[in-house]
Amino acid sequence: MQNYELKGKNKYWSLYKKLRGDILEGRLKKGERLPSKRALAESLNVSVITVQSAYDQLLAEGYIFSRERSGYFVSDVNVEFHGGREYQPVQRPPEKKYALDFVRGTASSLFPFSVWAKLMRAVLADCGEHLLESVPCDGDLELKNAVAGYLYRARGIDADPRYIVIGAGAEYLYGVIVQLLGRDKIFAVENPGYGKISKTYMLNGAKCVYVPVTDGGADCEAAERSGADVLHLSPSHQFPTGAVTPASSRARLIAWANAGGRYVVEDDYDSEFRLSGKPLQSMFSLCPDRVIYMNTFSKSLAPSMRMGYMVLPPALYERYLQLFSHSANVVPLFEQKTLAKMLDGGYFERHINRLKNHYRTVRQAVLDKASELGCTVKDTGSGLHLLVSFEGASDGFIKEQAEKRGINVRCLSDYVLSPMDGAEGWAVINYTGVSPEAVSEIKV
Amino acid sequence: MQNYELKGKNKYWSLYKKLRGDILEGRLKKGERLPSKRALAESLNVSVITVQSAYDQLLAEGYIFSRERSGYFVSDVNVEFHGGREYQPVQRPPEKKYALDFVRGTASSLFPFSVWAKLMRAVLADCGEHLLESVPCDGDLELKNAVAGYLYRARGIDADPRYIVIGAGAEYLYGVIVQLLGRDKIFAVENPGYGKISKTYMLNGAKCVYVPVTDGGADCEAAERSGADVLHLSPSHQFPTGAVTPASSRARLIAWANAGGRYVVEDDYDSEFRLSGKPLQSMFSLCPDRVIYMNTFSKSLAPSMRMGYMVLPPALYERYLQLFSHSANVVPLFEQKTLAKMLDGGYFERHINRLKNHYRTVRQAVLDKASELGCTVKDTGSGLHLLVSFEGASDGFIKEQAEKRGINVRCLSDYVLSPMDGAEGWAVINYTGVSPEAVSEIKV
Repeated sequence: MQNYELKGKNKYWSLYKKLRGDILEGRLKKGERLPSKRALAESLNVSVITVQSAYDQLLAEGYIFSRERSGYFVSDVNVEFHGGREYQPVQRPPEKKYALDFVRGTASSLFPFSVWAKLMRAVLADCGEHLLESVPCDGDLELKNAVAGYLYRARGIDADPRYIVIGAGAEYLYGVIVQLLGRDKIFAVENPGYGKISKTYMLNGAKCVYVPVTDGGADCEAAERSGADVLHLSPSHQFPTGAVTPASSRARLIAWANAGGRYVVEDDYDSEFRLSGKPLQSMFSLCPDRVIYMNTFSKSLAPSMRMGYMVLPPALYERYLQLFSHSANVVPLFEQKTLAKMLDGGYFERHINRLKNHYRTVRQAVLDKASELGCTVKDTGSGLHLLVSFEGASDGFIKEQAEKRGINVRCLSDYVLSPMDGAEGWAVINYTGVSPEAVSEIKV
Repeated sequence: MQNYELKGKNKYWSLYKKLRGDILEGRLKKGERLPSKRALAESLNVSVITVQSAYDQLLAEGYIFSRERSGYFVSDVNVEFHGGREYQPVQRPPEKKYALDFVRGTASSLFPFSVWAKLMRAVLADCGEHLLESVPCDGDLELKNAVAGYLYRARGIDADPRYIVIGAGAEYLYGVIVQLLGRDKIFAVENPGYGKISKTYMLNGAKCVYVPVTDGGADCEAAERSGADVLHLSPSHQFPTGAVTPASSRARLIAWANAGGRYVVEDDYDSEFRLSGKPLQSMFSLCPDRVIYMNTFSKSLAPSMRMGYMVLPPALYERYLQLFSHSANVVPLFEQKTLAKMLDGGYFERHINRLKNHYRTVRQAVLDKASELGCTVKDTGSGLHLLVSFEGASDGFIKEQAEKRGINVRCLSDYVLSPMDGAEGWAVINYTGVSPEAVSEIKV
């Protein structure tokens, strides 16, 4: 120890680290007596207080122990020590950019930044310290009430705000649904479909089965035969087929749920974007006791804003409280309050209208280009994507041609979760991330 | 239909709802033919376009179908209709307020609002549209790097920022850990302990066993006998006992984990608040391949800010990416960027120092009051709570006396998760939500 060189301002820390290293690496043995504070201070030419502080830290961490009137001893510490790794701040490789991306992207230039920033400042000023309070499991009451008001105005849904649960986006809510209904339940999902849905259910421990979707919506008979306890579907505009589940099928599926104590998860992910006419009536409105209605703000505001909500049937809400009332909501209160103001002030609906006008123009550009190229289009006038086929072209050919033009595109078959016929030859055109000009410029 | 009264501006919507109601309630029967658009328009004294729009909506929703040249017919829709519920915005009952709360509460008046607001404005200005982008599953890179820097400066931890995962608070991260390690694994948690930990693991489908904690920290032998695959502990300052797991036990537990391919979850929930000396060395530093290090900002910033992080062993990080790379991070990018600036700019550490000064004063007031009342105190000089016993007083007596004085308090026995001896007679004094003055004023 006499050869310790203690440098810098923090001599006690330096001494502590040297002693700790000697203990961990076995140079100071179990049971060995350490020099007295005074003796070590003298030999190192430091103050007794410095040694005292170093010994105190080692004592607190249990590297040494003291025996009254006989001094400090090394504890029995036997560990493979892996300290002192070097690191550099990391960089992420840039994501591949496309000239035209029909897979992901948002109309981010239309996001009402100045409104959002203004509302944020208002929230900071209005709420002050209340923003620091923990939020009840089901979310901030102001936001729950605001969502209920919005659902009533924009979606014709009479949802009791009590039963609304705010969560951090769709996948988060899928996880809550599994915990709520039980992971012994079988979840039926639509095929083809958005892979994340079944992936998230399975990651949460549930079993998934698949129900085919045709142009006529979810196949009721297949759902009835599936053995499922829960059916997850997007009846207003299925992704990626675009199919609408008609009223007769909705009624039949609700009867099926009612008869067996089952539930329907109505994932209304893009219902704001019915570009002609009003949104289609929700399944939830037909049977609020058997339907969990859910939606997020990822498509309407921004993917980075992880906020979504679900309206639970009253009995499930009771169970939700039993399971989660000990937990705080995971969405920051700041975001919840800001969004509540955006909904209550009518800003959100104005933003949606601007987006719809924009998307109508993009959609028309896509339809024009499809007609110019002689494609067949499958489109139900709703949502932000449609299907396009090029006479007789295989998926491989479609992607090869797209790649050549710097276009990112997926085919219907990329969303097939369980083998099915008829998925070949359709490109899924999600037009949220493209400009009408860029679409018009696509060359054959 | 001739007696429909169509009121208001939106006649088509009114007509649509009346027709839908008649179909749903069976007044219009399956297969029945609807009047022609012209005929209905005449009888209702509205334009043909109004009827056309209503029929279009019913067609889109599948309530009716059309046959070429023969008109519109009612679909087979058979459903119990539960529409039109009334609701009122709900109010939450106010939480019970105490004169003095030793269970929950934060020093919210110390939160650096003006700094936080300034940084938020800077983030809005700097990042612009980038704030709308979806965040990779493990969090924003800037925040990951900032957390690594903070851990190095404040905690002496050399964490590779690559392996840091940002999540929405502790419980959220517990859920991710179960998904990562598998819900077939057995999780050992400390007893007595914070009930939310085991509750959350179990809610996520894992099995929990209990390892006793004594004044000497976690019981290593019990951990070794437990059959657990994962051990969750807070070695620097256990809640609620305050016990520190000494270096020898840490080494033994790491050897146990190493030998069996097991993992230790080091929950460092209040290590910022070691009020004398430096934080105790982390178990993670001893063995970054077997220890998952985790902490949150709920105690240091505000409970409403649901942000936490964990540092994964490299092999687990690989598995994490396999499972979650398809998912976006659930913490809003806005909050992540603001926190990164707070850490990088040194604001966070300044805030912690102010908090520590405040808590030192509160702690001294608690110690003075305990001495005045002749209590025995169990305190390791770390964290934000300590244990107090009143000679021979039972838990019932302690709570009765507290209640009389408007004081909210829990006893050690409230945190017992599996039967154990010696838990009776200790009050758990969490002093984060009280002022030194209020403590001094407690009357016997």
